[in-house]
Amino acid sequence: MEMSALWKLSYGMYAIGTLDGERPTGCIVNTVIQITSDNPVIAISMNKNNYTYDCIKRTGRFSVSILSEKTTQNVIAKLGFSSGRDTDKFDGDIFAWEYMDGLPVVNENSCAHITAEVITMTEMETHYVILARVQDAKVTSDYNPMTYKYYHEVIKGKAPKNAPTYQAPEKITDKETWACQICGYIYEGDLTKEPEDFVCPICKQPKSMFKKQ
Amino acid sequence: MEMSALWKLSYGMYAIGTLDGERPTGCIVNTVIQITSDNPVIAISMNKNNYTYDCIKRTGRFSVSILSEKTTQNVIAKLGFSSGRDTDKFDGDIFAWEYMDGLPVVNENSCAHITAEVITMTEMETHYVILARVQDAKVTSDYNPMTYKYYHEVIKGKAPKNAPTYQAPEKITDKETWACQICGYIYEGDLTKEPEDFVCPICKQPKSMFKKQ
Repeated sequence: MEMSALWKLSYGMYAIGTLDGERPTGCIVNTVIQITSDNPVIAISMNKNNYTYDCIKRTGRFSVSILSEKTTQNVIAKLGFSSGRDTDKFDGDIFAWEYMDGLPVVNENSCAHITAEVITMTEMETHYVILARVQDAKVTSDYNPMTYKYYHEVIKGKAPKNAPTYQAPEKITDKETWACQICGYIYEGDLTKEPEDFVCPICKQPKSMFKKQ
Repeated sequence: MEMSALWKLSYGMYAIGTLDGERPTGCIVNTVIQITSDNPVIAISMNKNNYTYDCIKRTGRFSVSILSEKTTQNVIAKLGFSSGRDTDKFDGDIFAWEYMDGLPVVNENSCAHITAEVITMTEMETHYVILARVQDAKVTSDYNPMTYKYYHEVIKGKAPKNAPTYQAPEKITDKETWACQICGYIYEGDLTKEPEDFVCPICKQPKSMFKKQ
């Protein structure tokens, strides 16, 4: 079996939001699909180890923020590169967010927000497939939705900058930037001016883990 | 609720193949996702009215052909614009196909082929969510997988031809072509030279339903 055949499937990039008690938490997933059109049902797939899954199981509710090609790596790093077990993913000023129907949604250049209520969860070896009824949905911009392919090839820099679809995130085009080599967090400005005990606000790595871009 | 928010979800374009007794049949779907990575499981969503679903229910097996940006509209029209109840979707010479593990797969500029065995089917109002264990998978080309967005905006001509990602299918770039206004089938050459009783090989509409492109 050529496992790489499965890499040809097309996915998007989504921020899932839910509540851990009163604390907002969430994660990044690639798989959100619409199942039925009237009174719509969506399906998402989530790794069992994901703390967000535990919280969705308790609350029975979650939000989906559809990320766009203009969403910065910092949103994905903050929500996707650490666990909600030991970090507050919605703290600080890394990205803009708000509550929609009591659930956290990402405002940072998102395309749309959806809130949904769990119908069933089906367990597979490593993942759960969650079917959920859409409660509310709104369009937040007309930016192009970010595909996983775009994230992989353009945002993570694995494609040349002159690829036809390349469009650098607005915030970092004409400023000096430093990238955390662990989580991808982008620091804007002259990092050398930060004190020696500066740490990455997302993954808490020291200054030495940053490289100038 | 703004239903158009749901249109921002990202999908691919896939040909599903199965057997109706010994007769190959299939359809086009947008939603195939990988659920688990080791001993992989995939999920697909399929409308209940789809004859392919009835056949998958009987055989417990199906194939997925991942279509590419070079897959012609004729493949999608032939598999997606009629029902396997009353047409043989794999007859004629509309597109190239073969058997893989006894199931029909599309060779016409596909990216990859997957065969899978059904684990569970979950019923929603209008659709079934089918979870299936991957039996075999192979890469068939390095073409870009076709996204639903690409199909919608480029292949169906709803985006200008000079959109940055536009790439006309190879077969029709420098020939006279006529498009069936019902199913989108592309006729190559001078249609006026065909006899008056010519009908679209896919949807059986008369010659008068074609427009020169």
